[in-house]
Amino acid sequence: MPNSPSYPSKVFLNGEILNAADAKVSVFDRGFIFGDGIYEVMARIGGRFFYKEAHLNRLRTCLEKIDISCNVDTLESEIPGLLKLSGLETKDCLLYIQVTRGVAPRRHSYPREIQPTVMMYAWAKTLPDINEIPASVVLQKDFRWSRCDIKMTSLLGNVMANEFAMAHDCYETVFERDGILTEASHSNIFFVKNGIVYTHPADCFILDGITRQVVLELCEKLGIEVRLEGLPVQDIPKVDEAFLTGTSTQILAIRNIDDHILSRGQAGPITRKLQEAFLDLKKSGA
Amino acid sequence: MPNSPSYPSKVFLNGEILNAADAKVSVFDRGFIFGDGIYEVMARIGGRFFYKEAHLNRLRTCLEKIDISCNVDTLESEIPGLLKLSGLETKDCLLYIQVTRGVAPRRHSYPREIQPTVMMYAWAKTLPDINEIPASVVLQKDFRWSRCDIKMTSLLGNVMANEFAMAHDCYETVFERDGILTEASHSNIFFVKNGIVYTHPADCFILDGITRQVVLELCEKLGIEVRLEGLPVQDIPKVDEAFLTGTSTQILAIRNIDDHILSRGQAGPITRKLQEAFLDLKKSGA
Repeated sequence: MPNSPSYPSKVFLNGEILNAADAKVSVFDRGFIFGDGIYEVMARIGGRFFYKEAHLNRLRTCLEKIDISCNVDTLESEIPGLLKLSGLETKDCLLYIQVTRGVAPRRHSYPREIQPTVMMYAWAKTLPDINEIPASVVLQKDFRWSRCDIKMTSLLGNVMANEFAMAHDCYETVFERDGILTEASHSNIFFVKNGIVYTHPADCFILDGITRQVVLELCEKLGIEVRLEGLPVQDIPKVDEAFLTGTSTQILAIRNIDDHILSRGQAGPITRKLQEAFLDLKKSGA
Repeated sequence: MPNSPSYPSKVFLNGEILNAADAKVSVFDRGFIFGDGIYEVMARIGGRFFYKEAHLNRLRTCLEKIDISCNVDTLESEIPGLLKLSGLETKDCLLYIQVTRGVAPRRHSYPREIQPTVMMYAWAKTLPDINEIPASVVLQKDFRWSRCDIKMTSLLGNVMANEFAMAHDCYETVFERDGILTEASHSNIFFVKNGIVYTHPADCFILDGITRQVVLELCEKLGIEVRLEGLPVQDIPKVDEAFLTGTSTQILAIRNIDDHILSRGQAGPITRKLQEAFLDLKKSGA
């Protein structure tokens, strides 16, 4: 189980940096009424945001997908000031960014002329070099929508799935859609079978995680064969290794999927190889 | 196209009645971060909320479904004060209620001990006796989640679908899931074929609308045969009439579904009969 989170000291909200307790939005913010927003999380490691451009580009792409007009360059320029006032200039931390469509009288369809609400905060967090304790995961039918490529704040489905994992003393819920394993409630999933790495293609059924993309790059660099195919549920007993990926999850070996123990409950050799290559990449200041 | 909505004068928020501009929630409200909430809309007609108990019971049920603990009786007891301060004691109006899980540091799984955020507001609205202008609707594959029985605030999918309707100069988008017509982006749908009324059963693919329930009661009273079956898309050309139902939509005849004009673009005889029976019910003070 993760440690209890706490509030950050400061919140950037629409151009101001506020104490967290003072950071409030109108109840008519479409983020509050409709979950009409996009979010992003980035890790700062050794003084640099890891794959910053990839994260900010995904933010841009997702905002475009739901037709929210927001200048991400301007938002980016506010990050150093937020880190400074948060006392995090020289610390490893995570940064959360949320952009909602803005404030308007309630109606499903949206006005064009409103200003988006931009909110960001950062908190100290040193990610482990390698996540050493393999995770237990539980399976669930994917009951979420079929636009999982959009990193939106309408997350009740993911909340329920994550809660399902906690209720089963697991780190994650892995989704099955029409018999195919897609992703988990807040991470992507990879499988290793006969030395080949499998992960679901980046279509509308998964979020194309930045760490997922990095792992695919590392596989190419290391000469590990990859197939962008969703694994059928019935192949789980044939799997040699499996791991989750995500910005704060990094590369996390899976100990068991429901009752199937993988790789004797340890990170298997390919998972380990990727974890080490990922660590090298972090240390190189990518 | 509906008229532009405006802000209400007052908002009830966690026990206080505030000017709308002062009604603000923490950016850490899980309603803002995760769309982790439930909502309800009721119409006040002639001094009474129409089917109030049905609405409040649905609110209770939906809150239970997502494990939010909130005393709906207490919430109900605050409504008269809100109406009074809003200057709506003697006016027909609509009441919007939203309950979110409350404020907590961001993490998908939720703490048990937090207080839910309760928000309500009302605005003057006289619903027409009968909605006389038939609506155009457009079809779209249902890309939403498969827990549409939960009236939640994670509504980006519905927002996108409603926007799709507006882009096609239509009132509503009607969803098709696996070849079956389910419901629309913020209303239920009924079809009439050979004198028999069809509507999707109240399973996890639709919201069980209160007006939908009222229409089913009226059909029974009027001796109109009903089948709780989703209509296959390919049966649209065989349909004689169709209509939408919802709290503010009431019973609204459908003029056309995509290019298929129904009942010569007018409310058909069974739709009309139900509209009149519904009007009688409103006038009787149900």
